Amino acid sequence: MTRPEQDTAGRPRAPVIQRLLGDPRVAQARLGKRIGRLPYFTRVESATGPITRMEGRDILNFGSNNYLGLANDPRVIAAAQEASARWGAGVTGSRLLNGNLALHEELEEALRRFYGRTGAMVFSTGYGANLGLMSSLLGRNDRAWVDEEMHASVLDGVWLARANMKRFGHNDPEHLLAQAKDDTASGLCVVEGVYSMRGDRAPLRRFLEVCRETRLALVVDEAHGLGTVGARGLGTVEEDGVVQDADFITITFSKSLGSCGGAIIGDKDQIEALRVLTRPFLFTAANTPASVAAALAALRILHEDPALVAQLKERVRSLREALVERGLRPIPSDGPIVSVEVGADFDTLQAWRLLWNRGIYANPVIHPAVPAGHGLLRLSVMRTHEEQMVRTVADACADVFSDLQLSHEGRGKVAS
Amino acid sequence: MTRPEQDTAGRPRAPVIQRLLGDPRVAQARLGKRIGRLPYFTRVESATGPITRMEGRDILNFGSNNYLGLANDPRVIAAAQEASARWGAGVTGSRLLNGNLALHEELEEALRRFYGRTGAMVFSTGYGANLGLMSSLLGRNDRAWVDEEMHASVLDGVWLARANMKRFGHNDPEHLLAQAKDDTASGLCVVEGVYSMRGDRAPLRRFLEVCRETRLALVVDEAHGLGTVGARGLGTVEEDGVVQDADFITITFSKSLGSCGGAIIGDKDQIEALRVLTRPFLFTAANTPASVAAALAALRILHEDPALVAQLKERVRSLREALVERGLRPIPSDGPIVSVEVGADFDTLQAWRLLWNRGIYANPVIHPAVPAGHGLLRLSVMRTHEEQMVRTVADACADVFSDLQLSHEGRGKVAS
Repeated sequence: MTRPEQDTAGRPRAPVIQRLLGDPRVAQARLGKRIGRLPYFTRVESATGPITRMEGRDILNFGSNNYLGLANDPRVIAAAQEASARWGAGVTGSRLLNGNLALHEELEEALRRFYGRTGAMVFSTGYGANLGLMSSLLGRNDRAWVDEEMHASVLDGVWLARANMKRFGHNDPEHLLAQAKDDTASGLCVVEGVYSMRGDRAPLRRFLEVCRETRLALVVDEAHGLGTVGARGLGTVEEDGVVQDADFITITFSKSLGSCGGAIIGDKDQIEALRVLTRPFLFTAANTPASVAAALAALRILHEDPALVAQLKERVRSLREALVERGLRPIPSDGPIVSVEVGADFDTLQAWRLLWNRGIYANPVIHPAVPAGHGLLRLSVMRTHEEQMVRTVADACADVFSDLQLSHEGRGKVAS
Repeated sequence: MTRPEQDTAGRPRAPVIQRLLGDPRVAQARLGKRIGRLPYFTRVESATGPITRMEGRDILNFGSNNYLGLANDPRVIAAAQEASARWGAGVTGSRLLNGNLALHEELEEALRRFYGRTGAMVFSTGYGANLGLMSSLLGRNDRAWVDEEMHASVLDGVWLARANMKRFGHNDPEHLLAQAKDDTASGLCVVEGVYSMRGDRAPLRRFLEVCRETRLALVVDEAHGLGTVGARGLGTVEEDGVVQDADFITITFSKSLGSCGGAIIGDKDQIEALRVLTRPFLFTAANTPASVAAALAALRILHEDPALVAQLKERVRSLREALVERGLRPIPSDGPIVSVEVGADFDTLQAWRLLWNRGIYANPVIHPAVPAGHGLLRLSVMRTHEEQMVRTVADACADVFSDLQLSHEGRGKVAS
């Protein structure tokens, strides 16, 4: 019989375990926890809405990606519940071998139609979609050109492919062109429709031109653009008129669609090729019926009611205006992420903490997610935020900048 | 406005896209589809039970990992539905930033107690758990010693870590010792409690001795062992008495627990270190409330009623006996996977197809999943299979071997 809750302490540890325990980032995290509360792994105790129960308090939540509020929509919840009843709690296998529900295929069909493309392929996580696309598309001698603010899932995919990664300046297609134009290696370029930290959008038309000139495939990650940008909510690919031109569009179900999972959208032939080659797709269990049905229901709601996107945009405009009225300078964008530069990591964490003390949740963004000295307060807008909430958070941000004696001019400055 | 369902055909394709489309595996898959039905991506049209609706027919399903039948248990389904209602359809963010529900922490607590260890960490997929553990534990100069039949998720994790991978013979700790004993690199050894293809179990006590002698950390993947092996269903770690000794145990929720997701279980200090270092954990959206609650409900049912494991074992014994009575020789094991060697890839696919024609679903395992010429028919037993179903599949397998003029002696032979 096993002894209850005993661990392996007392026997010699393998060198890899010793190194793990000695990692300076681990010591930092432990120290941070002892000093006071860290802005990470905050315990969430209710559904995620404009007011969310966190660590025993009702918090005004400007730190969630539930942009359209669909994670709590009764129609989406009902769809998840019905799917559990009809299809079971899980499918207990991969799409390849035994978990390829008609429901997964239905979501793929709905996604490709939503984007007006001929192929789509559903993954159990958004991370998996990017990891899978990069690792199956790239060979070892290829070049992956990625924006310097690219999401970790893409970087991990490039590493998994053991391809050669090259970075270009953030949102700088000319920097890409200058580096890639005389490069003979085949490859691809990855950008995000809406960047997760600064919230700004990629200039996709120019990136497309550069990709054609340099014979690079263009991949656009619309994780944060889906449901938030473009008249119908397709993302920056719609806003910039390149929906048909991007070689692949990747999305996640865990933001506007209120579920978990991800997808690659593109031409049918390419998608069918990826389906038989992509290891993170072939060797992962298929997503649960509830998760798939929730994403499908949310997609249909968005498809039928693009006014949701307009309502979100209206809230975003309100918040931006309220911040500017109070002398703050959010990074320009029309996406749902409204980031204000604070400066040093320490100031950024302090600003986060002061907001938290006032019952407001936001996300602090510090080095290495952004360059040192350019820490951000990141506010994420939900369609379901009320006007009064927008004013409350703007007031609080202005106060926090005053309290910390942060210059509204020097910091929070316009990016480009 | 986007043109409906148009694709990028007609403009020059980037070289990486041309190569993707020209991959010989893609042509093979296309050819296979044209010739007749391939045994992959079979469309599932009902919940996964002993009888499953597939491609318009009711099929006797011996190809699912729903070992304990819990994916369809009304208590598990009710838990998923209640979680959707209470917590929403999704959490719309990572554990790190905004998706760390009390529910995720509750499942971690239940898992660590179930295994009698001090730490557990929940992932959105089982693939992610192995990918995350490998990629955060291993450095570039480390050695990863893996069994030659290791699952893709571990291999991908080692590649992501850019560590040095070394294979040892299947279930052969002496081969590991011979290679590792004079090796000065730090590293780890990964084995599976129950192997997914042949269904046999790792000799964990001997692997533990070898790991101590060579100062390697020991990781045991119990994806197929959880719920199926050991008196309480902890896996081969329980059966072999090493639950407390393995440095890390990884599991999936997508087999016995009837959901989707995965976890790493181990010592608290190590798990807390992994929590701040593991990229596939930090940068993936947290799993949906329904998926987490389903896994938690299934775990509690298993915890309170180990008789489920005994019932499954009884069914496994029945199937093995029925096959042997009919002259077939399944690969020895007491796990839920009963594999019979067929031989050449072509014969294996033919055998699969003959079973399908009789209304039986199994999984053919061909090269490169197994060495060329050692193709397998893999039968997966569910607790909810009835005795009559077991006899039906055994009869069918015996007939198929006769029809294909496969020798019962020469093929389907004992492995070791």
